[in-house]
Amino acid sequence: MKNDRLILVTNDDGIKAKGIQALIKVASLFGKVVVIAPAEPQSGMSHAITVKYPLRVSKIEESDSVVQYSCHGTPVDCVKLGLNQFLERKPDLLISGINHGANSSTSIVYSGTMAAALEGLINDIPSIGFSLLNLDHNADFTTSSRVTKKIIEHVLANGIPDHICLNVNIPDLPPEQIKGYKFCRQNKGYWKEEFDKRTDPMGRNYYWLTGEFYNSEPEATDTDEWALENQYVSIVPMQIDFTCYSSLEKLKNWNL
Amino acid sequence: MKNDRLILVTNDDGIKAKGIQALIKVASLFGKVVVIAPAEPQSGMSHAITVKYPLRVSKIEESDSVVQYSCHGTPVDCVKLGLNQFLERKPDLLISGINHGANSSTSIVYSGTMAAALEGLINDIPSIGFSLLNLDHNADFTTSSRVTKKIIEHVLANGIPDHICLNVNIPDLPPEQIKGYKFCRQNKGYWKEEFDKRTDPMGRNYYWLTGEFYNSEPEATDTDEWALENQYVSIVPMQIDFTCYSSLEKLKNWNL
Repeated sequence: MKNDRLILVTNDDGIKAKGIQALIKVASLFGKVVVIAPAEPQSGMSHAITVKYPLRVSKIEESDSVVQYSCHGTPVDCVKLGLNQFLERKPDLLISGINHGANSSTSIVYSGTMAAALEGLINDIPSIGFSLLNLDHNADFTTSSRVTKKIIEHVLANGIPDHICLNVNIPDLPPEQIKGYKFCRQNKGYWKEEFDKRTDPMGRNYYWLTGEFYNSEPEATDTDEWALENQYVSIVPMQIDFTCYSSLEKLKNWNL
Repeated sequence: MKNDRLILVTNDDGIKAKGIQALIKVASLFGKVVVIAPAEPQSGMSHAITVKYPLRVSKIEESDSVVQYSCHGTPVDCVKLGLNQFLERKPDLLISGINHGANSSTSIVYSGTMAAALEGLINDIPSIGFSLLNLDHNADFTTSSRVTKKIIEHVLANGIPDHICLNVNIPDLPPEQIKGYKFCRQNKGYWKEEFDKRTDPMGRNYYWLTGEFYNSEPEATDTDEWALENQYVSIVPMQIDFTCYSSLEKLKNWNL
C-alpha cells in the first residue's frame, strides 16, 4: 500500500527551509514523495500565479522514495506545475508546509502555504497545510512532525470530507504541553499596518511593510486563535467559495 | 455632500490601464478621489503582499478632485499604503478595476482586483471590484462605466451589508444588450493548465503557464457564470471567512 501512494509536498518558505524538510521526512513514511517547492522564500504570496514570466524548474535531489524539484515561481505555480508536468498521476495527498509562523485567523488570505493547499482542493486532491507558531528559520519541528504524522495517518485512512482542505496550526510547545486537537472556525481579525517610512541615500522615500495582528473577537472560544492560545492544535476546514449566502437574499431587494 | 466624500481607487492592470482611468472618471462624479495603483500590471497577484523589498510610491498627477499615485507593489500593497500613508482619513468607498477580463467563478482566487476589494473589506470599508469581460488593453468601457456609476450611486445612498464586499462582472456588450443585474453565487469551476514547455537557446527548459477555464456546474442558473452568459451584470456578495461550517460538526467526530 505505502509504495502505491503518491504525495505532493510544497511550501512557501522555500525548498531549503527546515519546515519542509521535516514534512518530507514525515511524508516519506507514507508513500512516494514528489516535492516541488519555491527556490526562494515566497511568504505573503497568497494565491499569486506567474503570468508575466516563464517558470524554471530544477531537479535538486532524487532517491527511490523522494524526488525534489525547486521552482522559480510561487507556491501555487509549484502545485500547478507539479500536477501538470512532474507527477505521473494525480497525487493521493497534497501537503504544504510546515510553515515557519502561524497561518491562523484572517492571515490565511496572505498565506502561500494555505494557497497551495487550496489549489490542491480546487484540483480535487485531499490537501492539508501545516504551520508552526514560530517564525525562526531554525525553529524546532519535533512537536509539529508528530502532529503532521498523526493527521496524515488519519487522513490517509479516512479521507477528508468533499470540498474542503484542512488548515492545521501547531503551538510552539514541547509535545507533552500540547493539550489536544480542536476543530474550529477561522477567527475574525486584521493586521494594523505601520509602514516604516525611510529615505534612501538619494533622498527618495521608501516604505517597509510592517504590522501587528488584532483579534476582533478575543472572547470567542470556538476559533483557531482561541485553540492556539490554549495550547491546542487548531484544525480549520477551509472551502473556496467566497459567496456570502446570508446577504444574497437581502441584496435581491436592491432596485438597480 | 459630494466634496466631503473620499474614494480610494485601485486595480491590478496598472495605473496606465484604460479600465482604471474609466473608473477614476466615474468616481470623480461622487467625491474626492485618491488613486493608488500598481505602476505595472499585477494580474494574477491575488492577495500577495511585498515583504522582501520596500515599496516605492510616486505622485503622478494631482488636481482639485483627483490625486494619482503609482506604487511598485501589488494591489493589496496599494490598499495598505493608501490607508496607512496617503489618505487623510478612512475612505467612504474603495473601488477596484475596471479589470480587463472576467473575475468570476473560482478565478477570483487569483485576482488582484478582487483581493484589493477584500483588503478594503478587512479594513471595514465599503468595497467593490468591477471587471469587464474583455481582456483587450483597448477594450470599450462605455457599458461598464454606466454600470459602475449606477452601482456606486446605489451603494453611496444605501451602503453595503456588513462583512461583505461586492464582485461585479460586466458582459462585453453595448448598453442596450444588457438585460439587467443578477445577484448570484460564485460558480464552481477550475482552470485546466496546459503548460507550454519550451527550450531556451542554452538548451534549458522553461514553462509558460496557460490554461482554460472549466465550469463544473454548467446547468446551474443561480451563478455568476450563468448571469454573464445570459447578458446580465453579475454581482456576488463576497466574505472573507474560509471556514466550511457544514464540515465542522462532522470533523469533530475525528479521533485524533
